This record gives sequence, C-alpha cells and structure tokens, in this order.
Amino acid sequence: MLKASALQMKPQLGNIEANCDKILSFYDNSSSDIVITPELALCGYSPLDNIQSPNFQEEIKKYINIIIYHTKDKAPALILGTVWFEDNKIYNVALVIENGKIQNIIYKNKLPNYGVFNEYRYFSTKPCDNLVAIKGKYVAIFVCEDMWHTDLLKNIKNHNAYNLLISKGKIDLIISINASPFEIGKQDSRLAIVKQAQEIIPAPVLYLNLVGGVDDVIFDGNSFVRDSIGMCKYMLHAKEDSLHFEVKDVGSKKIISTEQPSNPKTTNKNQLIFETIQLGLKDFLSASNFKGVIIGMSGGIDSTITAAIAKETLGAENVLGISMPSKHTSQLSYKIIEDIKNSLGIKIIEIPIDNLVESYIKTLENNLNLAENNILDNIQARIRGQILMSYANQYNNFMVLTTGNKSEIATGYCTLYGDTCGGYNLLKDLYKTQVFELAKWMNEKFNNIPIEAITRKPSAELKENQYDEDSLMDYNILDAILYEIIEKNSSLENLYKLFDNNLVNKVLKLLKNSHYKRLQSAMGVNISTRPFGKSYQYNISDGFKR
Amino acid sequence: MLKASALQMKPQLGNIEANCDKILSFYDNSSSDIVITPELALCGYSPLDNIQSPNFQEEIKKYINIIIYHTKDKAPALILGTVWFEDNKIYNVALVIENGKIQNIIYKNKLPNYGVFNEYRYFSTKPCDNLVAIKGKYVAIFVCEDMWHTDLLKNIKNHNAYNLLISKGKIDLIISINASPFEIGKQDSRLAIVKQAQEIIPAPVLYLNLVGGVDDVIFDGNSFVRDSIGMCKYMLHAKEDSLHFEVKDVGSKKIISTEQPSNPKTTNKNQLIFETIQLGLKDFLSASNFKGVIIGMSGGIDSTITAAIAKETLGAENVLGISMPSKHTSQLSYKIIEDIKNSLGIKIIEIPIDNLVESYIKTLENNLNLAENNILDNIQARIRGQILMSYANQYNNFMVLTTGNKSEIATGYCTLYGDTCGGYNLLKDLYKTQVFELAKWMNEKFNNIPIEAITRKPSAELKENQYDEDSLMDYNILDAILYEIIEKNSSLENLYKLFDNNLVNKVLKLLKNSHYKRLQSAMGVNISTRPFGKSYQYNISDGFKR
Repeated sequence: MLKASALQMKPQLGNIEANCDKILSFYDNSSSDIVITPELALCGYSPLDNIQSPNFQEEIKKYINIIIYHTKDKAPALILGTVWFEDNKIYNVALVIENGKIQNIIYKNKLPNYGVFNEYRYFSTKPCDNLVAIKGKYVAIFVCEDMWHTDLLKNIKNHNAYNLLISKGKIDLIISINASPFEIGKQDSRLAIVKQAQEIIPAPVLYLNLVGGVDDVIFDGNSFVRDSIGMCKYMLHAKEDSLHFEVKDVGSKKIISTEQPSNPKTTNKNQLIFETIQLGLKDFLSASNFKGVIIGMSGGIDSTITAAIAKETLGAENVLGISMPSKHTSQLSYKIIEDIKNSLGIKIIEIPIDNLVESYIKTLENNLNLAENNILDNIQARIRGQILMSYANQYNNFMVLTTGNKSEIATGYCTLYGDTCGGYNLLKDLYKTQVFELAKWMNEKFNNIPIEAITRKPSAELKENQYDEDSLMDYNILDAILYEIIEKNSSLENLYKLFDNNLVNKVLKLLKNSHYKRLQSAMGVNISTRPFGKSYQYNISDGFKR
Repeated sequence: MLKASALQMKPQLGNIEANCDKILSFYDNSSSDIVITPELALCGYSPLDNIQSPNFQEEIKKYINIIIYHTKDKAPALILGTVWFEDNKIYNVALVIENGKIQNIIYKNKLPNYGVFNEYRYFSTKPCDNLVAIKGKYVAIFVCEDMWHTDLLKNIKNHNAYNLLISKGKIDLIISINASPFEIGKQDSRLAIVKQAQEIIPAPVLYLNLVGGVDDVIFDGNSFVRDSIGMCKYMLHAKEDSLHFEVKDVGSKKIISTEQPSNPKTTNKNQLIFETIQLGLKDFLSASNFKGVIIGMSGGIDSTITAAIAKETLGAENVLGISMPSKHTSQLSYKIIEDIKNSLGIKIIEIPIDNLVESYIKTLENNLNLAENNILDNIQARIRGQILMSYANQYNNFMVLTTGNKSEIATGYCTLYGDTCGGYNLLKDLYKTQVFELAKWMNEKFNNIPIEAITRKPSAELKENQYDEDSLMDYNILDAILYEIIEKNSSLENLYKLFDNNLVNKVLKLLKNSHYKRLQSAMGVNISTRPFGKSYQYNISDGFKR
C-alpha cells in the first residue's frame, strides 16, 4: 500500500518564501508516504524573465535547501515542482526528496513553446529516468507534457527493471505534475491523455494541477486520480484543495482507495466559464493589490454582465459603476442601469458628458471636420475613458475593468484610449454570442441581469440609431466566421465554402487592421483555445493577406 | 574561382509574391556562379503565426516551386532562405537550388528563443550536412546562429571529405545567412563570430543579413565578406544593397576580389542610432500604409527631437505638430516650439487646452478631489492625447507618434491613455541621457534643434514648478540604475554597492509598478540589448521582489 497526499496549490507567483511556507505546512500535516506538489509549485507558473535574475536564482536555491533540510528524519517523501539550476543550465524539474536528501531529479524534456507557453526561452532538457523507487514502491513521475509523449512512457517499458516490476505488479503510481491552464474542453483532453498513458503503463495516475489566475492565464486545478481499472476518484474543483488516497493491491490490480468524497465533474460550459472568470478577476486584483473595480455602465450587455460577475465575485461594496450618458443615450439604457443598480445593490454614479462633448467641439470645430471619420464617436468614448480613469485615480485601490468582448476586439469595434481604457477585461475572450449565453445562464442562477440588456439590439449609442450589426454584421454570422479564422485556423477556401465571400473578406480585413488596437489593450481572462495575447502573434507590419 | 552575388534584401513581410519577384530579378541580373539571399528572404522575418496558416504554407510552397522552375537551364546556383515544410514539420532552411532542382537543404538547428526570438514556437530542427558542393566548389552554409556554435563547424572537420578537401584548399566559402536585428555593438559581435568560425575552418566568410524594420525589430544589414587572411571586404550599410565578389586562390589562401568599393564601418554610435530610427519609422509607416506623422509638441526635448528625426526621414510636409498649451506652459516652451517650427519648416497647429480642463473640472469637482492623486495632471495629458487622436482621425494617413523615452517608460513617468497615445515611438528604447546625446549629435549634423530644448530643465509642465528630476531623481543617476537593472541584470547586492540604496529601491518599485502601462503602450524602435517588449517579459501579477 502507498499512501499519498497531493496539494492542488495556488502559489503566489514569485513569492518563494510564502510558497515554501505553504508546502512545508502541507507536508507537516500529512501522514502519507509521499507528498506531491504541482509543477513549479515553489515559484508559481510562470516566473518568466525572473528566472534569469541572479536574486531569483539565489532565492530558489535557498528555499530548495530549506525544504530538503526540513524533510530530515521525517517519514514522507516529497515531490517538489521547481526551477532547478545545474551546470549553468536551467531546468523545470520534479525533485524527489527523502529524509534530507534529493533522491532523484525528474527533468522536464518536452517543453511547450506554443500558445501562451515559451519554455525554451528559459529551460534546457536533460534525459532522465522517470521511474523511481520511493519507500520500496515504484513510481513513474512526469513533469506536465512529458506524459503526453508516448516515447517517454515507452522508455519505462524498456527499463531494465520494468518486466520484473510489472510482472510483480509493482508500479504503484504514475504521477503527472502540471501547470495546465483552463480552456473550454481541456478537462476532456487531460482525461484522454491519462487514458493513453494507462494503455502503455497499466497503473493508477495522479494528475495534479496548479490552481489560480496569473494575469490572463487561469490554472483551473481539476486534479484527479484515475486507477488502473479506469475509475476516476475525486476530481477537485478550481480552488486550492488537496487529494489524499491510498494505492492498494487487489489481485493483480492497483486500486485507489479514499475516504474523501469525490466531486462531480462540472459539465456546464457557462458555469466553467463563470468560475474561471471569477478566479481570474480575484487573483489579478489580489496580486496587484486592488480590492474593487470601476465599471463604465452603458446599459449594454457587456458592462451589465461585467458588473454582475464582479458583484458575485467581490461583493456589491467593491463594485463602483459610473454611468456617463449623452444625448444619444436611450431611455432604455437609463432603465437598465437603474435596474442593474437595484438588482446588484451596487453604487452607480451618473456623470453626463454632453458639456464635455460641447467643449471638445468648440475647441476643435474650426480645425477639424467633426462629422467625418468617426471623430465625434471617438471623442465621446474617450471622454468616458478619461472620466473612469479619474475615478481610478481617486479610488486608488479600485481598478477600471474594460468590457469589450472578443467580437469587438477582433473587429476593432471599439475606441482605443476610449472604451478600451482599463486594467483587466472579463469578457476579452468571449464572443458576443457567448456573452449572451453566459448572461442567460447567470440569470437562471442569480436572476440579476435585466432581461432588456439581453434582448435589446446592441448599440454603441454614439450617434442616433446606431446599431452594431449595421456597422458589422449579424453577430451569429460574425462570431462563426471569427471562430473559424481564429480558433480553427481555417483556409480561405474553407471560409468561402462556409460563408458569404464578401463577409469573409470584410472580417479578415477588420481583424488585420485592428491588430494595433489589440496590442495596446488590457489583458483579460483566457477562455478559448486561442485567446488574443500570447496565443495570437502577428506583426502590425504584416503584409500577408490570407 | 567562385563568383558570388549576395542580396542584402529588404523583404516585404508576408508579401511572398513581391519577395519572389525581387529575388528572381536579382538572380536574372547576376552572372555569378552562386546567388545568395538572407534568412527567410522569401517571406521576411518573422511571419510569426502566419507560418501555421494553411494559405501561407500553400503560398510559400507555390513560390518555392516557381523559383526552382525559374532556375532551369540557367547557370547560377541559388541559395534561398525560406520556411520549409516536410513530414508535417516546419523548418527554417537555406535551399541550394541548381538548374531546376533542390540540390541540398540546410536546416537551421540552433533556434534562438531569447530576446525578441521565439523560433521554437514554429520550427523543428533536423541534423544535416552543412558542407555542400556547388559547381565543383565546396561551400559551407549555415542559417544564422548555426555558425555561432563551434560544434556544427567542427562537424565539417569530421566530414569524410574534409581532410581531402582542405588539403587541396577546396573550401571556397562559408556562407552565413541571417536575420539579425540592430543593437548597439552588434556588428562587433558579428565580426567576432566570423573570426571564431575562421579559426576552425580557414575559409572566407560571407555574412549576409536582412535589412529593414518590422515593427520594433530593425534589421540593419551591415553584410560583409571577410577573406581567409582576415581582410573585411565591403561592409554594406543599413539599406537594401548587394555584394558581388570572387573567391580566388592565391597560393594556398582563398582571397576575396571585387571591383565594388568598400564602405567604411560606421562607428559613431549616435549616427547608427539615428539611421536605425529612420529605418524603423520609414518601414513601419510604409507597411501600415501611412505617409506622415502627428506629434504633440511640448517644447521639451522628446517631442522636439522626435519631430526633427521625423522631418529628416519623411520631409517637412509629412510632419504635423500640434502644440497644446495650458496655463502651465512656460514662455520658454512657446519659444522652443516657434523655433523648431522655423528650423524644421513643419506645420504646427496650436490648440490651447485650458477650456477643456475647465470643463473636466466642472464635470468632476463635485465628485472627486481633483487636487489629489495627480487627477488634474492626468486629465491634461489625456486631453492632449484625445486631441492628437482626433487629428489622426481626420488626417487618416498620418500616425500619431508618442514620444516617451526609456527612462519615463521604465518609471511610469507618463499618463496612460494620455502622453502614451500613439502608434509608434522613436525614443522608446533610448534613456533620457541618450536622447540628449542624440540631440547634440543631430545639432552638429543638421543644426535643427533649438539649444534651449537641450539645456532646459526637463518638466512635464502639468503644474507650476514641476520638474522631472524632483519627482524622479537626477537623470544621470536614474539612467545608470535602470541600465544596471534592465540591461545588465545586476544583482541587488551589486546595485547597492554601486548606488544609494534608497534610490535603488525607489527605481525597482517604479519599474515594477509601471509594468501595466508598458503592456498597453505603443511599440518603438529597438536599439538596446534589452528593449521593452518581447525582450522584457514579466507578469503584472508578479510577486517577486528583487
């Protein structure tokens, strides 16, 4: 029997001392044979260029030594996910620490360098034995993607001891320590990878993930154990938590046994999105020392749902709405803002902007033709951005949330330095149609979003009778085209097959021409397989026309 | 004798057809044995995520085939730098094409993944023979950093044929094709690497680079040939150009012979910086279809020198200055703006902002305490940003240049959505003290910068008697500290040894707390070894305190 305790940890990125405290306290409270932490648990994922700083390196080395010393004369072995320095190279490793000594070093060899990942920037690789003996048991340990690659699993089968071991049923556990961010459908991929591993090495698998938001990247936990007969035992949710279990021999099988109740897998997509946004918002504010948020309330769905999510996450007292009506603001918008104020119980301050618009007109009308080129539209949006930022100056532990959705950001249907003002964006990676779906789900759950915000025709209200879909196109079509381009990387031929050619061309042009805006916009919560940001890299000077 | 022609090419990023035209026209006009293009000449460097687009891949394949066919029954061999698709993998290669056939494929094996580079995101590696026979001569070919690594050079010495070849003096040329961006001192590093290669393989070296700006990355050309007796023959400058030369046997030595006059190496640092900024500005505007620039003129050194460089680069008619004085604007600022207008011959429009400031005060004073938290300072800066952007709407082929220098950007001494508004920044990677040096050099060369802009005490003029160095510290000290932190990656111990501890702590704090501003700011011309942007990667949620 092997007794194991795994910490689904939320490290503080870069706060190595705090993370060391947390790891040692978990270790001390465990009576298991083996205590496991996720990938880079000691520093958080990813410390980025800090990894190359001499003081960061010194601190990592110091706390590794403290942790090693701490295990002296204590029973549990500790699997520590950390950065590791050796021979002037830097590695991403799992250290197997036992009784004051490093017994094994498991190096990560399959370094991800796609999407948000850039591990070749920092880490080297080094072949190693993934199969180690801990307390007389044999355990295979992989850092993150190393388990995805069947060659490393097969290496174990070529291991001298393997045939002997397996015939005696001696591989007790495969441990995979991860820093795996949320995306829709990701948990299914994780399960598939675990199953694939078990087809090669028929042993129970612990899939252990980090949890918590680091800027736009949200680690969603969802750690689990799957035994060799294919039963998933407890799946954790997206919060700091732990797994405690035993691996037992039942006949020739390894069975997972536990007293911990298993969580049901969350399958509702909108609930997963909602929880991910909450995690991202909470952790971003806390890491940057903010307690509340300021939101420009327009009566549209984006600012309405942003306020609703913020209220559910931070409490009504930490959400400040600013409504900034102009002569183009409809009665419906006033009503929705009043309704959301009542349903959420948040404070909303009204600052009308027409006087400021008039001042700009007086200042500029002799020099510029204000009726053309959207000048007046942009002026209104920038006045609002300016007012929000002034409030952020005064309420300096409140951060402005910008509320543009992925459809707007993809097409540049926003004013740079205007409605793009803000430090974080909850909707950045949700298409408009997804925002509506999420709003409906939230209404079922919290009944807090005025129905008119969902049913009204989207409008920027910068001119009379201005509707998004007149300038752009039907959001259902727009989002479908954007999804094919951004997330599916579809060929032009395929796009033309699926959609009207003119619409495809229009979207491609909007997407390309608005890239400069995206590069100057706030980060937001990554949800999709291809969020704007590190996963979407192009030059402004790009002459390629798809 | 081997006759060679090398094209120091300025590709249009992503415009594969235009690049193909240029390559074939150069090829057709050459009577050499071998025609050489730089790294990724066919698509430009770097196409980034386009590399993964099916249409991009198709187009690359198509034009490679067109180029191959074009060489049929023609004499010169062609070394083509391109992306290459094989076995579902993507490579960065040099194709050796002769008479309608690919004779050899030289794969890049040392993929840079530091600084601005991220090649593991796209490319795989594949061992290959770097030594190839072309027209009865032996030539060693390396893609970029492959020549830096002595192991690949030594592989050639282990090559079966090598001892035979070298004894007969048969290695005619080492070809290194590059996409190497400018930084101060880079040309010396390139020469050192060539010398190191020649110590292992005593043959002449062609170092061929791309030229041109791609967003913030500026390829500076400076291609050269160095023969085996250590003489550098022609060094090109930072513009599209070509090298034509012969490799001849003189005794046992390989000698470079040419009728082309050699350019002297430019050693003046400020001239190099000036030329790099010009290249960056010109190419960024042209790639994004702009012809001119709009600059907010404050009478300070940053906007003054930005206007002066823009005028020397684009002509006076393509530079529009907007001066936006307030009651805090000094007489000296008015005078400098008048002087620069006359010395550059550019148009400067004056838009006073006090009325707008008053409107904001009236709108907000009942709700906010405008005297505190820099609210009024920021309002002024944002009004100016807003006015500049309104002009950019009207003059829609003119781009706003933002003018913050590296010292300001590093410390956050700027208003986000205010003076940071703009599409490009010529001074982004120059510390304030470097800006002054460059201004003095420009005055020697063009006599176009009012001397008071250089001698006055820097001030944001957002309040009475507000001077940068009172809020920050002496720029000489600030820049020295920033340089040690950013460019030298100094340890805290070292910083404390070099500077006053309180000043060090202040700078570290400012640098960290302003990171969110940098992530939402315009790109600019990379000059230093560590420009902000891709070379400087941290999370906002970073808890590491150096």
